[in-house]
Amino acid sequence: MVHPYRVAILGATGAVGTELLELLEQRDFPLVSLKLLASARSAGQTLSFKGDHLPVEAVDEKSFKNIDLVLASAGGSVSKTWAPTAIASGAVVIDNSSAFRMDPTVPLVVPEVNPQAAAAHRGLIANPNCTTILMAVAVYPLHQVQPIRRIVAATYQSASGAGARAMEEVKTQAQAILQGQTPVAELFPYPLAFNLFPHNSALNEQGYCEEEMKMINETRKIFEAPTLRVTATCVRVPVLRAHSEAINLEFDQPFDVAQARSILNNAPGVTLVEDWQANYFPMPIDASGKDDVLVGRIRQDLSHPTGLELWLCGDQIRKGAALNAVQIAELLAQQNLIQPSIALAN
Amino acid sequence: MVHPYRVAILGATGAVGTELLELLEQRDFPLVSLKLLASARSAGQTLSFKGDHLPVEAVDEKSFKNIDLVLASAGGSVSKTWAPTAIASGAVVIDNSSAFRMDPTVPLVVPEVNPQAAAAHRGLIANPNCTTILMAVAVYPLHQVQPIRRIVAATYQSASGAGARAMEEVKTQAQAILQGQTPVAELFPYPLAFNLFPHNSALNEQGYCEEEMKMINETRKIFEAPTLRVTATCVRVPVLRAHSEAINLEFDQPFDVAQARSILNNAPGVTLVEDWQANYFPMPIDASGKDDVLVGRIRQDLSHPTGLELWLCGDQIRKGAALNAVQIAELLAQQNLIQPSIALAN
Repeated sequence: MVHPYRVAILGATGAVGTELLELLEQRDFPLVSLKLLASARSAGQTLSFKGDHLPVEAVDEKSFKNIDLVLASAGGSVSKTWAPTAIASGAVVIDNSSAFRMDPTVPLVVPEVNPQAAAAHRGLIANPNCTTILMAVAVYPLHQVQPIRRIVAATYQSASGAGARAMEEVKTQAQAILQGQTPVAELFPYPLAFNLFPHNSALNEQGYCEEEMKMINETRKIFEAPTLRVTATCVRVPVLRAHSEAINLEFDQPFDVAQARSILNNAPGVTLVEDWQANYFPMPIDASGKDDVLVGRIRQDLSHPTGLELWLCGDQIRKGAALNAVQIAELLAQQNLIQPSIALAN
Repeated sequence: MVHPYRVAILGATGAVGTELLELLEQRDFPLVSLKLLASARSAGQTLSFKGDHLPVEAVDEKSFKNIDLVLASAGGSVSKTWAPTAIASGAVVIDNSSAFRMDPTVPLVVPEVNPQAAAAHRGLIANPNCTTILMAVAVYPLHQVQPIRRIVAATYQSASGAGARAMEEVKTQAQAILQGQTPVAELFPYPLAFNLFPHNSALNEQGYCEEEMKMINETRKIFEAPTLRVTATCVRVPVLRAHSEAINLEFDQPFDVAQARSILNNAPGVTLVEDWQANYFPMPIDASGKDDVLVGRIRQDLSHPTGLELWLCGDQIRKGAALNAVQIAELLAQQNLIQPSIALAN
């Protein structure tokens, strides 16, 4: 019952864009055509898809004609510019930017958590922040059994969260340091190799950065829990790929650790990684390229009778961005929520 | 009124040992002689001190004769072996290992926090865990104004916390990765370069590692607050030197952020590093080699009406180990709490 769709990727040459391409192929998404869109600067490149070399086209007013589904990952300003055009052309847009996430008319969807929210879309569905997605997948299964009252999170975010070039910058800085030279920071405000710093997104008057506010506000929206108490400290670390998070959860009643472990061992999108004998728990190098969020070190919080501590790592480009978007697309396809615009176009 | 002392460093060739040597010189500690002790493996090396080249001697039964003060930093088993001998010889031992820290008869001292505890020593004073010292210096000034009820900490601990060789291992791993080779882990259980993992100290049955239990138990002892609620997630990160910590504090009553900032701006051992316009806060590369703990991002916890969030970086070899030990020695000297054993020896 799944129609094949005419799909476009906006921002096809970026870190998330190339991952989207790979996932559409790997997961055999039902498509009849795939158009790769990017800025004029990237146009003319080709990217391979199922054995073909597809050209990257510069996005313009006509790009979305005869397109059913747009996977957008080219930043907030690009999405604000082109999403209305795509929707007006009859496409459904799944947008990875932060531009529309907190718009009350736009569903913000993690398929493992709130698939039901997708049905209300008006042509646009927002893909949440990467750090937020990883946390949501890991803690929502517990929240379903007993509502979480408060989350205290500290993050360890990899360089590639700022894009493929940021990852290269860290490598270049590391090489410089190893050769006794002074590292140069261009994309990041400070050297990141062998260093770390609080997340460099804009700070609000309360002293929280945008990344932290995304974790707070988006989690509330995804969980449909507007009073959920969340605080976070987001930190950029010299890891190439995959984010990690130390998460402290408070409930109203004690949450049995064995039960929590069992729930997470069976939760969608979660792999439990806990070898207590070997002191082996989730690590970024093991989470990189994986679909699942790796969760471990689940333990009773010694400072709070109704608290749990846990640790997670997840590939923020994959589950934190591209995979989650493709899963939303699959969800829409399965529920026939993408309205093919063929009739309109013909 | 300060006597010059006959001092020995046990573990002189290690990362903390060499830092102790440097600090005794820089701070012009009142000494008449300095003996460098290490394992037989390291004996025969020389280390420079105030223009002299001092030989490193293998520690034995006679090493502590005519020594007033021993600064020990050679691990728990070495301290357990030699501290009793040194004390029996009339020396006061300041021990950097974890061997005696929780012994109720042994003072555990951070000079900015509980200098008064030193006076009760019976020949032995323990230097706390590095991560614990950094946190204690940063949060005790707030605790004095309004008792802290609960601490939720997440740490970002550098490679050199595991010694100088561990720091070299991370560099070697980074070089391998940059050359497309597979990194080799020897001292650490897993590759740390461009990766991270939960602290690899032994886990207890509650799922907490030793490093986390040190933060919990030692903080309680130093603060003389046996019911203080503390939880921690300790993580090793690919930083060469200086530990970072994201710390969430809960009080009984709201703690005004401006007041907290003012208190910490005037607190001993603390440098406030907060440039909100430039998004510039404490970083390991800025804390390395510094005496003070750098504290910033002090903000009202959005998830808790009586909570505060803060972020710190500190040099765990310096303030987290060697400097704190030398400060304890200075405290003992100022208060005439080192009993020169000259009379005994002659």
